[in-house]
Order: sequence, then C-alpha cells, then structure tokens
Amino acid sequence: MKAFNYYAPTEIIFGCGKVQEIGSIAARYGKKALLVTVPEFSAVKELYAKVKKSLIDNGLEVVHFDGVIPNPTTDVVTEGANIAKSSGVDVVIGLGGGSSMDTAKAIAVETTHPGTAWDYNCHTSGPTSATLPIIAIGTTAGTGSQCTQCAVITKTSEQDKSAIWHRNIFPKVAIVDPEVTATMPKSVTAQTGFDAFCHNFEAYLSVNTNPLVEVMAEDAIKIIKEYLPKALENPNDMEARSKMAWADTLGGFTNSNAGVTLPHGLGMQVGGHAPHVSHGQALAIIYPQFTRYTCAWAIEKFAKVGRILNPALNELSDQEAAKAACGAIDDFLKKIDLWIGFKDVNVTKEQIRQIADDGQVLGDYLNNPRVATIDEMYEVLMNCYERKE
Amino acid sequence: MKAFNYYAPTEIIFGCGKVQEIGSIAARYGKKALLVTVPEFSAVKELYAKVKKSLIDNGLEVVHFDGVIPNPTTDVVTEGANIAKSSGVDVVIGLGGGSSMDTAKAIAVETTHPGTAWDYNCHTSGPTSATLPIIAIGTTAGTGSQCTQCAVITKTSEQDKSAIWHRNIFPKVAIVDPEVTATMPKSVTAQTGFDAFCHNFEAYLSVNTNPLVEVMAEDAIKIIKEYLPKALENPNDMEARSKMAWADTLGGFTNSNAGVTLPHGLGMQVGGHAPHVSHGQALAIIYPQFTRYTCAWAIEKFAKVGRILNPALNELSDQEAAKAACGAIDDFLKKIDLWIGFKDVNVTKEQIRQIADDGQVLGDYLNNPRVATIDEMYEVLMNCYERKE
Ligand SMILES: NC(=O)c1ccc[n+]([C@@H]2O[C@H](COP(=O)([O-])OP(=O)(O)OC[C@H]3O[C@@H](n4cnc5c(N)ncnc54)[C@H](O)[C@@H]3O)[C@@H](O)[C@H]2O)c1
Ligand SMILES: NC(=O)c1ccc[n+]([C@@H]2O[C@H](COP(=O)([O-])OP(=O)(O)OC[C@H]3O[C@@H](n4cnc5c(N)ncnc54)[C@H](O)[C@@H]3O)[C@@H](O)[C@H]2O)c1
Ligand SMILES: [Fe+2]
Ligand SMILES: [Fe+2]
Repeated sequence: MKAFNYYAPTEIIFGCGKVQEIGSIAARYGKKALLVTVPEFSAVKELYAKVKKSLIDNGLEVVHFDGVIPNPTTDVVTEGANIAKSSGVDVVIGLGGGSSMDTAKAIAVETTHPGTAWDYNCHTSGPTSATLPIIAIGTTAGTGSQCTQCAVITKTSEQDKSAIWHRNIFPKVAIVDPEVTATMPKSVTAQTGFDAFCHNFEAYLSVNTNPLVEVMAEDAIKIIKEYLPKALENPNDMEARSKMAWADTLGGFTNSNAGVTLPHGLGMQVGGHAPHVSHGQALAIIYPQFTRYTCAWAIEKFAKVGRILNPALNELSDQEAAKAACGAIDDFLKKIDLWIGFKDVNVTKEQIRQIADDGQVLGDYLNNPRVATIDEMYEVLMNCYERKE
Repeated sequence: MKAFNYYAPTEIIFGCGKVQEIGSIAARYGKKALLVTVPEFSAVKELYAKVKKSLIDNGLEVVHFDGVIPNPTTDVVTEGANIAKSSGVDVVIGLGGGSSMDTAKAIAVETTHPGTAWDYNCHTSGPTSATLPIIAIGTTAGTGSQCTQCAVITKTSEQDKSAIWHRNIFPKVAIVDPEVTATMPKSVTAQTGFDAFCHNFEAYLSVNTNPLVEVMAEDAIKIIKEYLPKALENPNDMEARSKMAWADTLGGFTNSNAGVTLPHGLGMQVGGHAPHVSHGQALAIIYPQFTRYTCAWAIEKFAKVGRILNPALNELSDQEAAKAACGAIDDFLKKIDLWIGFKDVNVTKEQIRQIADDGQVLGDYLNNPRVATIDEMYEVLMNCYERKE
C-alpha cells in the first residue's frame, strides 16, 4: 500500500434539529461568540433567532456580523475581524453556506494575527494555533467547509480567488442539521449538491487519494446520484436532505485529505474573474470537457463512477465504461438542470482567456490524473463556451 | 436518517518505514518524551533503537519506561507515571501492542491528575485536558488503540478489567507502520487480527452504529477476510501486513464511534478473571455462541458479513444467509487457528460463572442488537467451554 496521511479532527454532530445544540457546544469555547452570516432574509429569519436563543440560553454573549456576501472578499473579512477584535470574542460561528463558513474561518485568523487573513493563504506557511476556535453550521449541501481546513476568499482588487488551507482552521465542531438546508432555493440545492459530487469525485481521482477517501467518496457518489434529484423534486423530503447533508460532509473529509483536481482549480479562477458565477455553476460548466480530457487517464475510477450513475455500464468493459461515464455525468447535469456553458452565465471569451492563463496559480490541477498545460486548459474551457442539445 | 456524532481526531501517518518520523512528530509536543514499551527482546531491539535515535536526532530527551506487561495493571501504570512525574516529560509515546499503547494513555492521565488513572475510568467523568499529549505506534494489528479514546487497564487486586474511555486520551498522532508488525509471532498475528475483525463487526452491529462506521467496517471486514490468512501464511508479505494495519486502524475509528458489543463486554471480564488468556483468544472463544445468540436480531448485517466471508451465501435469502454467517465465522476461526474453547486455555467452569456474573459491569452488552441477561450470558459462555470437531 502507498503511504498516506489522514486527518479529520472536526467533531460532527449530525441530525435533524441538532442546530439547537449550538449553545451548549459553543459554551465549551468561551463566553462571547461572533455569529457570522449573510444579512437576514425571510428564509433564515427563524434559524438566526433559534441559534441566538440557544447561545444566550447557554450563557453566551452574541455579537452578530451579518455582512457576508457570496464569494466573500478580503474586505468583508476585515470588516468582521474588526468587530471581533473590538468586542473580544472567544469563538467564531459560521452559519450559512460555504461563503459564511469560510468568512468565519478567515475572521478567526485575522482577529488573532498581524496583517489580514490573505497574508496566511495557501501560498504562505499559514495561520498559527492562535486562530480562534471555529464552529460551523452549514445551510447548504454543499461545500463540505464545515469539516475542511479550507477557507476560500477573493481579493477583490486583483480578481484573485484563493484559499487559506491550513490545519489550524479546521472547525472544532460541525453541526450538520439537514433541516436547515430545506429552505435552499432549488438552484442553490442543485449547484451546491453538484459541488459535493465534485469534491468526492475529484478526491477519488486525485493522485493523492487514499483507501479511506476512496470508500467515503464511492459512498457519497451513490448517495448523491439517488438523493440529489429527490431533494430537488421535493425540498421538504428530509430523508433526501439528510442524505445530501451527509454526502456533503463526506465531501469535506475527502477534499481535505486528498484534495480536489482540475475543475476546482479552474472553477476558482472563474470565481475570481466572474464572481457573479456561483461555485457550483462554474463546476457544472467545466465538467463535460474535464471528464473527456481526463477519463483515459483514470479508466478504472471513471468506469466505477459511470456504473454507479448508470448501472447499464456494468455490461461494458472498463475502457468502454470509462468513456461512457462522461455521458453519464452529462445526463446527471441535465437531470439536475445544470447543463450550461459560459455563455449562459455571461462569461466572455476574453474572460475565458484570463481564466486559463491563471489556471496554474493554485496547485489543484497537479492532483489530476492528467496534468494540463495552460494551452490545454484554454482548449477545455473554450469547449465549455456553449452547450448544444 | 438517525442522528449520530462522529469524532476521530487522531492524525494518521500510514506507511512502511513511517516509524522514522516519530522524532519530528514528537518534537511538536515538547522536548522530553516518555517512551512506553514492554521490556526489550530480540524481535523489537532494532525498533526500539530506531525510535530512540529518531527522537534524539530531533532534539528530544528520551525517558524509557519498559515495564509494560500484557493486560496491563494499575500497578504498572503507577510505576510509569511516577517516572513521568519525576522526570517532567512533555509527551508520552506508546510503542507496542494495545498493552503498551493503553499503558501510555493511562500514564498520560495519571501523571497530570490527582489519584491514579483508575480514578478516571469509564464509570467516572474521566480525565481533563491536562492529560499529556499521547503518540501511539502500534506493533500489532490489532486493537485499534492508536486511534481510540480507550485505555484498557486491570485492577489486579480486584480482577477487574476496565477502561478509561474519554476524548482527552485520543492519541494526537498515530504512526501506522506495517513493517513493525512483521515480527509478531504467528499466534499474536492471528489473535490481534481477529480482534480487529471484532471491532469492525461489533461496531457495525452496534445499536449506536452510523453510516460512516458502516462503510468503514464493511471495508475492513473484506480486507481482513482476504489478508489475515495471507499475513499468517507469509509474515513478511508487506502488502498483507499493510492491509491488516489499515483494517486495524479502521477498527479504531469504528470502535471509538459506535462501540463494541457483547463479545467485548464478556471478553473484558475474561481478561480480568483469567489474565493469562489474551484478548484475541477470549473473543475467539466467545464468538461461535455470540453469533448464534445474535444473528436473528440483525439479519441484514449478518447476511452481509456472511456473504463477504463466503460469497456462496449470495444464493441464499437474507434470513438463511444470516444463519449461515455463523458457520462462515466458525470457518474463519478455524482457518486462522483460533477454534478454541475455555477448556483449551484452562479457564474453569467456576471462573465462567464469575465472568458471567460480572457480564453487565461494562455497558458494551447494551450495544448488542439482542441484550443479554446474566443467565443468558452464562449459557452463552458455558456453550463455549469445549469446541468439538
Ligand atoms: N471551504 C471549503 O472547503 C469550500 C469548498 C468548496 C467551495 N467553497 C466556497 O464556498 C462558497 C460557496 O458556498 P455555497 O455554495 O455553500 O453558497 P453560499 O454560501 O455562497 O450561498 C449561496 C446562496 O444561498 C443562500 N443560502 C444558503 N443556504 C440557504 C438556506 N438554507 N436557505 C436559503 N438560502 C440559503 C445564501 O444566502 C446565498 O445567497 C464559494 O466561495 C466556494 O468557493 C469552500
Ligand atoms: N484501547 C483500545 O482501544 C483497545 C481495544 C482492544 C483491546 N485493547 C487491549 O489491548 C490489550 C491487547 O493488546 P494486543 O492484542 O495488541 O497485545 P499486547 O500488546 O498485549 O501484545 C501481545 C504480545 O505480543 C508482543 N508483541 C507485540 N507486537 C509485537 C511485534 N511487532 N513483534 C513481536 N512481538 C510483539 C508483545 O510484546 C506481547 O508479548 C488488551 O489489554 C486489550 O484489552 C485495547
Ligand atoms: Fe467546491
Ligand atoms: Fe478488542
């Protein structure tokens, strides 16, 4: 067996209604909590109130920073960190999708370190253990951010989407409460659900994969194939929401231990250059060409995933099934209504050129079974401009 | 989905030769290390030297406590803790089988707490975070102790085998180096390998199981079925040793998250009343009756495990396969030369009476799909007195 490391220190509290436990959990880490969210809107009003009540009932003082935006920026992080500093909080709680959890992580760094959170990103030696304790409550399913050492942040001035990637930002505890995901709009369910698929599939393919990541990822892919369509069909199907919340969490474990590959590397650049495109949309746009670019370099794994998505591929040889897996993934994208190209989200050919040029800024592409040149990235991306059918 | 918690904070460093990294890892936790082992003998001489050299090369001072005995006692723990106290160590390293790792954990508690480690066992509120950091290097495969919150200790005076079970004794890091298991005598390979089977199987059956434990346990059972016989056949088959070391580690994750059931509960009492019987032997003795006592209460799971052990059971209904699984487990015990009864290890019928009477002292039996009375435990155990065939 190949050598590998495995580290997943976040404690997972899984179950419908578990968000109620936030107060008793946060009390382990101090008396004053910074709650980090997007601004209140009707779907989350009750949730915010519930979380605050639980915190207060458990003797915590709550400072609410509600300035998170999707694809969060360094400016937003600094705003939150300044509040955290001036009010002297002990623990930071990220409540929301990946954007809120990632902002919480970056605030936990910036509050206790010189400079800004950006100074501790993945091109540096990272934050120290002075980082404030982080608790994550995901409301999408999702980024897996509730149990990763990753916080994705965009430096607005430079259109540079990068990440802090360091063991000191693993949340201490993740509350994974499927009920709080039920209010997601259909499009967010689809986009974040596909993101969870991608974390598991890419970690599975990664040259840094390991035997535990492999079994987790296979299990998660089976779950997503079956339950993402159900969650889309009936948003209040709690079994489907539960399964998706769990597959999302598995994606956090797999991503943090084996990394993601080419699509995420490119997707991050899409997010930097065209922040109006959601992370899940960027992945959906890139996948149909990514799969064709990569499948011959990972035949067994593509074949296995293809057969999960379409059991009819059991009749084919591995070679044929791997190729057919690309079509099976296309079909899945169509089923969840994410059969889109850059044109559909108003990304221009000029922007595609810039995205490709920045395609090797992050190391993710190196995890791919086939390592792409900038030219190849450009070709892959240009073939994603417009989707026919 | 049912609610559950999952927590497995130990960092795993897996791979042949990885024991060399002990020095750089231990250096994270301080300057003075207590190395906890059984007394040196030829098979481990080189290993001890290698570990000490790596520690010293990385600037650590090493204090070696080599007084561990199999089924370690409170007296041994106190001896080690006194050395740790007087020399002021920063980190405790358990190097050896479960006995050495568990002793290291208990020493890490006793060194920094009033009273003895026994005062912090599973019938109490447990040790505090003052517990010294623990690093585990397993040389059997095994107890999974390298990544559990469990330390099994016997109070000699009372023939009481109990455990500390608390999150503060999870090792910070586990080095899982398959190479160091190659020197195990054949009998220890079989007994500890069967122990790993039991952790996974019992956690799988446990009423407290969860979806991650289930996929881990199934994977581990597949591995053990294939590779334990290979490791027995050729002790230097590093692929087999690697697979077993990994299945052992999965058993640590599964046991710590779902617990073990009736066989371990009873096996612990065997260890208390008849310490000359190894932990793996006690389990092997009990299993053939445990399976027959339990299978009708967990038909799907017995069927699944039966089919892993014997694919011919795929032809049968779940009901039939579950029953046949008992025979498949018998066959596996025969194959690994552990088809034994209490008589073979000189445990008397009087002792069996005492073991049964203490059968509910630990809570493990409550995790079993069928909860046994003391009378039922006695009957199960008496039917394990002598093995025919
Ligand atoms: N840290 C990681 O490990 C990791 C991994 C993948 C992606 N990411 C990053 O996470 C971000 C994306 O996060 P996301 O996809 O979860 O989306 P998001 O957090 O940006 O949320 C998307 C939208 O959905 C809304 N929303 C979220 N949950 C809701 C709910 N339950 N009910 C109603 N509305 C809800 C939000 O308010 C927002 O408007 C990106 O920046 C991406 O790069 C991080
Ligand atoms: N903490 C836990 O999670 C946990 C779980 C299950 C069992 N246990 C406990 O662990 C103990 C049993 O541990 P074990 O089964 O690993 O056996 P062990 O540590 O008692 O070792 C058994 C024998 O094998 C020798 N040995 C070990 N590794 C060797 C190697 N590589 N080469 C040569 N000789 C070697 C030892 O010196 C000893 O004589 C019991 O007390 C049991 O109750 C603990
Ligand atoms: Fe993602
Ligand atoms: Fe055991």
